Amino acid sequence: MHRFSPAMDALIEALRCLPGVGPKSAQRMALHLLERNREGAATLSRSLADAVERVGRCQQCRNLAEAVLCGICADTRRDASLLCIVETPGDILAIEQAGGYRGRYFVLMGHLSPIDGIGPEEIGLPLLEALARDGEVQEVILATNPTVEGEATAYYITRMLEPLIPRMSRIAHGVPLGGELEYVDGSTLAHAFSGRQPVPGS
Amino acid sequence: MHRFSPAMDALIEALRCLPGVGPKSAQRMALHLLERNREGAATLSRSLADAVERVGRCQQCRNLAEAVLCGICADTRRDASLLCIVETPGDILAIEQAGGYRGRYFVLMGHLSPIDGIGPEEIGLPLLEALARDGEVQEVILATNPTVEGEATAYYITRMLEPLIPRMSRIAHGVPLGGELEYVDGSTLAHAFSGRQPVPGS
Ligand SMILES: [Zn+2]
Ligand SMILES: [Zn+2]
Repeated sequence: MHRFSPAMDALIEALRCLPGVGPKSAQRMALHLLERNREGAATLSRSLADAVERVGRCQQCRNLAEAVLCGICADTRRDASLLCIVETPGDILAIEQAGGYRGRYFVLMGHLSPIDGIGPEEIGLPLLEALARDGEVQEVILATNPTVEGEATAYYITRMLEPLIPRMSRIAHGVPLGGELEYVDGSTLAHAFSGRQPVPGS
Repeated sequence: MHRFSPAMDALIEALRCLPGVGPKSAQRMALHLLERNREGAATLSRSLADAVERVGRCQQCRNLAEAVLCGICADTRRDASLLCIVETPGDILAIEQAGGYRGRYFVLMGHLSPIDGIGPEEIGLPLLEALARDGEVQEVILATNPTVEGEATAYYITRMLEPLIPRMSRIAHGVPLGGELEYVDGSTLAHAFSGRQPVPGS
């Protein structure tokens, strides 16, 4: 079967490391770059090399960082007594974009998944425990995903930190604001019912 | 608004040069690469640089090539009396994968589109005319896409080559109207080739 050329074929294969990119889209992407946007391709090549070289993990919260501390941990205006535990750096971005939270984060970079060999060590829990023992953190907000694994991870962390942290909470899960009940999936609805809050004044 | 870090933000921006990749998928891709597949990211960086450096155009047919001639033009077993005119290198791949065609190609790298400033020069028609004047090509198969622009381009080329080429045909049966050749399955394409029709007036 005819392919394009060695360098094109290698590029198409390499593009498949991107999530959600199959053989057909990889081919479409490679052709687009080579036919129409060589400057973009060169920039992307440099950006990838730069990011791989420069981006590591924050030594305090495991967030992606280009220095010992990430931008949030290095920001002294953030409230160090408040710690929000999330699964990924993308979750931090979502929370920051929502606004209103002024504490710090701890990034698990995943969740407990014994079947995949991901235990407490792999998601940085020894580092989290050491941080909690420092005594600066007074409140922990568990913001892992409302999935089976996210819930199990939140439960495990709650048990681990209970002796060390005065206040711990789990973010509320339920029907999204502006969402229509009719279009919300069943497990979210079940969650919204079991987590119902008393109406003020009722 | 908080972003990730300078190198991450640059990577997310650079990923948007890929077709069909918006801000959300670019962010998901960057996080996936940095968190889970740094080796893949490094390989992709090198493959992009390699392809940009090595891949040029075939001087005979305008196909993507890493030498003066592409693999097909350099292959002396291909029938040089038969020339199939396509819009992109992806079309060549689709036709080769369908099998059965043993002639050569000419790649327009687009189609006539006066509104975008794409005229005969931009799609290599002077080179195509010179090739036709050589006298080796006895039959031309017009395999531009069955879109308004593809049809107009095929019509223009037919008028241009009429005095030079004894037989000209347009692929027709099986290719869905408004569809793109690159995404048509192999047997449909093979059918379209065997059922090609003489161009009226040629
Ligand atoms: Zn940090
Ligand atoms: Zn060629």
